[in-house]
Amino acid sequence: MDIHRILVTGRLYREMGEILSDSSPDREYRFIAEDQVTFADYDWADAFVAFKPAANFHFGQLKWIHALGAGVDAFLSLPNWKEDVVLTRTTGDFGQKIGEYCLSYILADSQHHALFRRQQSDTLWKQAVPTPSNRLVAVVYGTGSVGRQVAKVLSLLNVTVYGVSLSGTPHPHFQHVCKPDEAAGLLAEADWVINTLPLTADTQGLFQETLFARMIQCGFINAGRGASVNEPALLQALQAGHVKCAVLDVFAEEPLRKESALWSHPGVIVTPHISAVTSTEEAVQTFICTLAEMERGNTDLPGLVDRTRGY
Amino acid sequence: MDIHRILVTGRLYREMGEILSDSSPDREYRFIAEDQVTFADYDWADAFVAFKPAANFHFGQLKWIHALGAGVDAFLSLPNWKEDVVLTRTTGDFGQKIGEYCLSYILADSQHHALFRRQQSDTLWKQAVPTPSNRLVAVVYGTGSVGRQVAKVLSLLNVTVYGVSLSGTPHPHFQHVCKPDEAAGLLAEADWVINTLPLTADTQGLFQETLFARMIQCGFINAGRGASVNEPALLQALQAGHVKCAVLDVFAEEPLRKESALWSHPGVIVTPHISAVTSTEEAVQTFICTLAEMERGNTDLPGLVDRTRGY
Repeated sequence: MDIHRILVTGRLYREMGEILSDSSPDREYRFIAEDQVTFADYDWADAFVAFKPAANFHFGQLKWIHALGAGVDAFLSLPNWKEDVVLTRTTGDFGQKIGEYCLSYILADSQHHALFRRQQSDTLWKQAVPTPSNRLVAVVYGTGSVGRQVAKVLSLLNVTVYGVSLSGTPHPHFQHVCKPDEAAGLLAEADWVINTLPLTADTQGLFQETLFARMIQCGFINAGRGASVNEPALLQALQAGHVKCAVLDVFAEEPLRKESALWSHPGVIVTPHISAVTSTEEAVQTFICTLAEMERGNTDLPGLVDRTRGY
Repeated sequence: MDIHRILVTGRLYREMGEILSDSSPDREYRFIAEDQVTFADYDWADAFVAFKPAANFHFGQLKWIHALGAGVDAFLSLPNWKEDVVLTRTTGDFGQKIGEYCLSYILADSQHHALFRRQQSDTLWKQAVPTPSNRLVAVVYGTGSVGRQVAKVLSLLNVTVYGVSLSGTPHPHFQHVCKPDEAAGLLAEADWVINTLPLTADTQGLFQETLFARMIQCGFINAGRGASVNEPALLQALQAGHVKCAVLDVFAEEPLRKESALWSHPGVIVTPHISAVTSTEEAVQTFICTLAEMERGNTDLPGLVDRTRGY
């Protein structure tokens, strides 16, 4: 595919511009802030590079859309997709990053960070024994590149890790992988349930009342997509003790709206979608690699999104 | 060595009693609360098993002292040691436990737990990018069983780990090991300095002004012994920015006295000596193994303490 004119926008447009602008003589770039992109820019460009479609997005003459993040649900929900537009995404080392994010909150809980913080403010010296990681059981939803790496990171600390995926296909980093409707036993055993799934028709609202009801005093981490979780059901599960604590990095609406009950719930930790931030280096490197493969005529592009599957 | 009469006291005396009391017909046990042990008990016993000497400790007819923890400084500071009394200690999986303790606080820092907690209480959505573990440098003081395991746990997350030991002998879990007086360069590079050293004449007050002055905005974790740290020097280093934060699990005096400035210092995390708690199973298993080896006449006992060396 011939890509000559490339439109880059969104959070990293300026930094990417500094690195990419004079990289190739037969290629033109426009690096533009999201709210400055015009209809004419879309009509000019062969390729659109961003984290998500800008508000005034239209397909214009685009042949290729490259997502700078791992999640492509915002692109896939665009109306009137042109069949011949190729969509790719950045996978980078999001899995390692999300693995470290999850591990940090799991260990903070096992090591009673919050308890000792309260005791310290009361000058109270009172022992509580940490739980060794090898006694923990985690169930990871999603066995793609992110879920696998999360499983690997937790396994390094001897956590027992099970997986749940649509296909139930086994994978070495998981003791066992099952399909969503076979997960009841695993959920009852879990100390932690971690969502790494992409947002698709199948995963929209997946974490609802019935699923949470299988958990027993379990920690829940959402590092996938916010809309996979039914928020009222989560709050009810916290209330009922099915969920002991919820660590949420993603939300159906971001930034999380000020009125949300999640902000002030004592069992909820809110982080502002930082578990897998694309660095400039990562963004540039993945983009350059994908572009190079595309120029070589590779049809099995790295990060190629199957629009039917949704990731 | 013939061991027939065994005196068990301290925190786990009751639990150990439930497991050990009828384990062997030709052996007598006394399981007694620390404040109930009498002089007659010491005179009766061949072996003394406890975390530390009781207040009224005397050597009586003891042939063997077995420490239920890893630290033996309280035993070694007893006056009038009888040369032929054997001292052993529990090593267990303290290294793994302390490794997980250290990792939990390192990751909590890298992942900005405290920042996001403050922001959550202000319903503030503002991103800050976590630091991946592979960008961190840790310097571990002590390359014995605990220090090595700490190094191993951190290395699993791709932290660069250097060691400091009295001998400077290399060890595979460390990129490099040096002697204390060669550590200036490493300290300047360190994101974290971790103390796992036993308390001996060499390590008493080791972490003082000059050493802290080598650090640059560094995290300091003490999971060794409190008396290895000069407390006023640490407070000054926090003030001067050499130390960014201090995670302290051990103190010269425990429980940490109410008046200590450490309790309320914003850069200090106080935990009540929990980074390596001996579990009942661990205490019993190590004791039984050591006893069995002793009965077989093994002179290279597991956990044997060299009193001259101090560990």
